[in-house]
Amino acid sequence: MDFTVDSATPAVSASFGATPDPRLRELMQMLTRHLHDFVREASPSIEEWNSAIAFLTEVGHRCSETRQEFILLSDVLGVSMLVETINGQDSGTESTVLGPFHMTESPRRTLGDSIDMVGGGHTCVVTGEVRSTSGRPLPGATVDVWQCTEDGFYDVQQPDVQPPGNGRGLFTTDEYGRYRFRTVVPSHYPIPTDGPVGRLLDATGRHPYRPAHVHFLVSADGHEEVTTHAFVAGSAYTDSDAVFAVKKQLLVDFARCADADLAARHGVEAPFVLAEFDVVLQERA
Amino acid sequence: MDFTVDSATPAVSASFGATPDPRLRELMQMLTRHLHDFVREASPSIEEWNSAIAFLTEVGHRCSETRQEFILLSDVLGVSMLVETINGQDSGTESTVLGPFHMTESPRRTLGDSIDMVGGGHTCVVTGEVRSTSGRPLPGATVDVWQCTEDGFYDVQQPDVQPPGNGRGLFTTDEYGRYRFRTVVPSHYPIPTDGPVGRLLDATGRHPYRPAHVHFLVSADGHEEVTTHAFVAGSAYTDSDAVFAVKKQLLVDFARCADADLAARHGVEAPFVLAEFDVVLQERA
Repeated sequence: MDFTVDSATPAVSASFGATPDPRLRELMQMLTRHLHDFVREASPSIEEWNSAIAFLTEVGHRCSETRQEFILLSDVLGVSMLVETINGQDSGTESTVLGPFHMTESPRRTLGDSIDMVGGGHTCVVTGEVRSTSGRPLPGATVDVWQCTEDGFYDVQQPDVQPPGNGRGLFTTDEYGRYRFRTVVPSHYPIPTDGPVGRLLDATGRHPYRPAHVHFLVSADGHEEVTTHAFVAGSAYTDSDAVFAVKKQLLVDFARCADADLAARHGVEAPFVLAEFDVVLQERA
Repeated sequence: MDFTVDSATPAVSASFGATPDPRLRELMQMLTRHLHDFVREASPSIEEWNSAIAFLTEVGHRCSETRQEFILLSDVLGVSMLVETINGQDSGTESTVLGPFHMTESPRRTLGDSIDMVGGGHTCVVTGEVRSTSGRPLPGATVDVWQCTEDGFYDVQQPDVQPPGNGRGLFTTDEYGRYRFRTVVPSHYPIPTDGPVGRLLDATGRHPYRPAHVHFLVSADGHEEVTTHAFVAGSAYTDSDAVFAVKKQLLVDFARCADADLAARHGVEAPFVLAEFDVVLQERA
């Protein structure tokens, strides 16, 4: 009957035995087992346990309408990527983290529009096809994109500088399943470092940077939805993304293009940067 | 190089490899391993991961100067007891959880004083010896006690009803290593249920109650400090404490006593309740 290092897990697990929802029961019993295994192996002092409680409390207090420090913590521990990878489609475009900046609705825009509402960056055209794993193009697919500026900030991080919706757009693919929009080349950037997760990175000798990327959330009728990035190939930190989100398949050539005819077709002036990123969705079973 | 379900743990673990403090490095790498094992086994959906983030955020937001919801969470998952048990002394009185109510300093009192500053309860005398595992009594030992009222509330929970320090006392053992104080018999009580941890208990079909107890934090020169409880033997919930803190050794007879002479010696009137609880401390190596 006594609570001991050995009896702890069966005792706590049994306490969850009458959980009406079988999935919640399973999750709480798994959590208990793995959490206790960690505590037994780590054998923390009372002071270390106090530090952990204080850290989690500070992470919670740092969360607000515009900041999600627990997602950051999940990100830097590789948990977000693990969950995304587990839930990713079996074939087609690989998924990667949603990240903490998909907090506002992207403004609906027309194909070819610019998502850059402040101007002044290097003009970039991003275009590609959304198709099914069978090869069939998917007209009417929804392509939600968001990215930071050339200075490495999302609109929500700079409400005084960027209008809401800057760097964001919600597009619908054309009759050929294609999307295209104008933007600026995004920059690598640090995840927010002025909170407890930033302090953790600092204390563990880790840098806070993410390689440059454009976020994509793509969906089409009858297909799996994909959360992913187009990473700027050759960007700093593609080998050491602070949130572990890089996959080889998602490295995209953001190529300098001097072709005046091609520029004209995209409604921009040469030279410009052109990125081609197709997204392949798996048909729903 | 790609992040996969299998490569995730070595990748994240390696990212902590340059942590200057070896203990922090070890803890972060262990945490990564056990956390990833849990995620792999649980295979959560994105919605379940979102629910977990939202739950932890709410736990953080519920923490304040007078409320520690993360300690409650640690308590109901048996983690607090596991950490206490790991850190408890090898011999002598067993330890149990500190709990969330040792947040204010107990008022220094004289042996025999009452810690009941509001009156009106069943008079109870709690007394005992503090001694070393060698059997030697420990004069000058510090005995910090705190408990709830007969209604099941601590002073900090009822600032309008109870004066600060009600149910609390800091005593020093006499020349024979003995302590004694007057109080009321504490009640079983629910841990706070109006937050996310309360909702978790409700969703998992668990009750929130703790059996009646008096908290003890006992220290003496050259000895291990002990955090423990004297549980009221026969109280409701001694078999299903919501925080798993009961140990057989800590069940104490709170005996009804009609002996007028004994009552007079303790400065109370018969009948009263008498509890004898000795605390045995291990000599420091």
